[in-house]
Amino acid sequence: LQSRLPAVGTTVFTLMSALAAEHGAVNLGQGFPDFDCDPRLLDAVDAAMRAGHNQYAPMTGLPVLREAIAAKLAALYGHAYDAATEITITAGATQGIITAILCAVHPGDEVIVIEPCYDSYQPSITLAGGVPVPVAMRVDAGGYSVPWDAVAAAVTPRTRMIVVNTPHNPTGTILRRADLDALAAIVDGTDILILSDEVYEHMVYDGQPHASVSRHPVLAARAFVVSSFGKTYHVTGWKVGYVAAPAPLMAEFRKVHQYNVFSVNTPMQAGLAAFMRDPAPWRDLPAFYQRKRDLFRAGLANTRFTLLPADGTYFQCVRYDGISDLSESEFAQWLTREIKVAAIPVSAFYSKPTESGIVRFCFAKKDETLNGALERLATV
Amino acid sequence: LQSRLPAVGTTVFTLMSALAAEHGAVNLGQGFPDFDCDPRLLDAVDAAMRAGHNQYAPMTGLPVLREAIAAKLAALYGHAYDAATEITITAGATQGIITAILCAVHPGDEVIVIEPCYDSYQPSITLAGGVPVPVAMRVDAGGYSVPWDAVAAAVTPRTRMIVVNTPHNPTGTILRRADLDALAAIVDGTDILILSDEVYEHMVYDGQPHASVSRHPVLAARAFVVSSFGKTYHVTGWKVGYVAAPAPLMAEFRKVHQYNVFSVNTPMQAGLAAFMRDPAPWRDLPAFYQRKRDLFRAGLANTRFTLLPADGTYFQCVRYDGISDLSESEFAQWLTREIKVAAIPVSAFYSKPTESGIVRFCFAKKDETLNGALERLATV
Ligand SMILES: CSCCC(=O)C(=O)O
Ligand SMILES: CSCCC(=O)C(=O)O
Repeated sequence: LQSRLPAVGTTVFTLMSALAAEHGAVNLGQGFPDFDCDPRLLDAVDAAMRAGHNQYAPMTGLPVLREAIAAKLAALYGHAYDAATEITITAGATQGIITAILCAVHPGDEVIVIEPCYDSYQPSITLAGGVPVPVAMRVDAGGYSVPWDAVAAAVTPRTRMIVVNTPHNPTGTILRRADLDALAAIVDGTDILILSDEVYEHMVYDGQPHASVSRHPVLAARAFVVSSFGKTYHVTGWKVGYVAAPAPLMAEFRKVHQYNVFSVNTPMQAGLAAFMRDPAPWRDLPAFYQRKRDLFRAGLANTRFTLLPADGTYFQCVRYDGISDLSESEFAQWLTREIKVAAIPVSAFYSKPTESGIVRFCFAKKDETLNGALERLATV
Repeated sequence: LQSRLPAVGTTVFTLMSALAAEHGAVNLGQGFPDFDCDPRLLDAVDAAMRAGHNQYAPMTGLPVLREAIAAKLAALYGHAYDAATEITITAGATQGIITAILCAVHPGDEVIVIEPCYDSYQPSITLAGGVPVPVAMRVDAGGYSVPWDAVAAAVTPRTRMIVVNTPHNPTGTILRRADLDALAAIVDGTDILILSDEVYEHMVYDGQPHASVSRHPVLAARAFVVSSFGKTYHVTGWKVGYVAAPAPLMAEFRKVHQYNVFSVNTPMQAGLAAFMRDPAPWRDLPAFYQRKRDLFRAGLANTRFTLLPADGTYFQCVRYDGISDLSESEFAQWLTREIKVAAIPVSAFYSKPTESGIVRFCFAKKDETLNGALERLATV
């Protein structure tokens, strides 16, 4: 069997979680919480199952859940998506991303991705027959930023889509209004689509707004906006997400969605919809995670690592240039094996070998987990 | 946005379920039970959630569930799949099907499908850049059968895969050992792969064996075998299935799977694994559904419909040529609107207009539902 993805191995998240388990390391690698969700969410799922909601959901998702999402997007970002025709529930955000790509990218189309980036984007583009066109973020003493001039320079007549991600995995940066304006200036008047991965939308700190693409009329009119319930409600293993897009884009999205997974877990959808009736259960999230970020950063300040800014997501990037000249991948493995704290090398988020001397930690962990990891990291 | 699937509309299952709801019809269209699963299965899922199993499962699925599947396949079909490298849990069988196609079919490759067939196969092949090559089943007074000579004649140097499905949706036929031998004779000595959709594996009647491709060494060595927990345990809405394949094929499958859905609902996997520890919970299924089939067939014998054989699946096909000369689609809509019983036109399972005067009913329903439908069908 000739591979369709010859360059692809097992995702770094799987590899590092396995290495962490093998070495009894604190797993600050793969992004997931080590604490439980609100028990009322479990009650709601259990009630849905006991009430017999165990057969196929509608292909597009339970209406009540799509309506809850539409209400949230209207309240937070001022964009009125039509729940019937513009929102679809997906089997996690990753499935929303590949489906948006498969429905829009034709063989030979170019798709601009901004590296470092989540590792599913480029293989998904390849499977659609498209050509990923990576543009590197700028990284300097102040941290990472998107060079919009380089993005503009990468546009060709074959450019079909630009993928953006805010808050940004792995760097923890966020886009601001000026970034959206710069992106809008690039795509306005073209038929370039936007795929906006906003799975960390509720993890933006220091009172800053989340610059959702759905806020920006020029962008929203051509965008698939992807988000995740797993990350928002501490249930990454439930694999429920959603995609919002204007009706003509969503119609094409659904053609592929119905043949990819057809529909998404019914009791989880029903439980999430019931839980979202609690007014705004996401409201406390920024403060919740900001406290953890601050705790983790304060601890890291007592180590030899250099902190990068962390404006969003539940990730903290650090430089280790004063500590080691191992490659990022080797350093992450060394940390896991010897210091017993697993991290993710940022190099895993690039398509070409790129060493910045930076690794990523996930701080979506109990305080005791973070404190235990900090103790170990202080010994480096 | 130029469509990647210009010929595709909304699946017939969604359309007919919506029409059934609109007209208050008994929904014998889309295939799903209207009765509940074993409550112990709900208990097991609830226990998994309460025990905190709510974060990402391993990308390949929970080991305990993969091991339960391997044990089942060994016990029933005598094929020892390695749970670690040859089985992957999917977000339903449909997701297993598209993933197998995306990982194996290169642009320009031909894939033979045997029509009528489940409506996801051909769009999935198209999305992979492949070319579906449909071969029509034979249908005569005795029912449907696969013309292996026509399948052999459709093979070209570009043939990459043949998709088979037993027990067969929508016709209710099953393959027999001689069919597998005929298929093996076609592919032996070639590099043609097999995709075998066996989601109705536990619904084979009258004491006949399920001719799983995994039983047949020549076929199993080149096959992706797909099945479903939803259909087996009456929880179609949970969207959990699996794919078994030899390790080299499974390695490629997992490369795509990890970027399609990454992983599958953790508490459902844990619950299903616990439930499967009950020795062989699928053992009573053939008798359970055979009774319903017999009840439904006995009732239909008192109507003007002509019964086709129903050796497997939870579907019963009927001819209506003595009743109407509407097209299948029109007749199914008429039945739904006027007689208040929804059916699926078999023509929806063909890529080219094909009228056989046959519609499909689903008998995975409570006895009272079936009796209610039969009363109405007797008025036709
Ligand atoms: C889908 S597995 C990894 C979770 C994640 O997004 C990350 O750790 O970056
Ligand atoms: C995935 S929706 C339809 C269920 C089914 O397989 C059928 O009715 O044929």
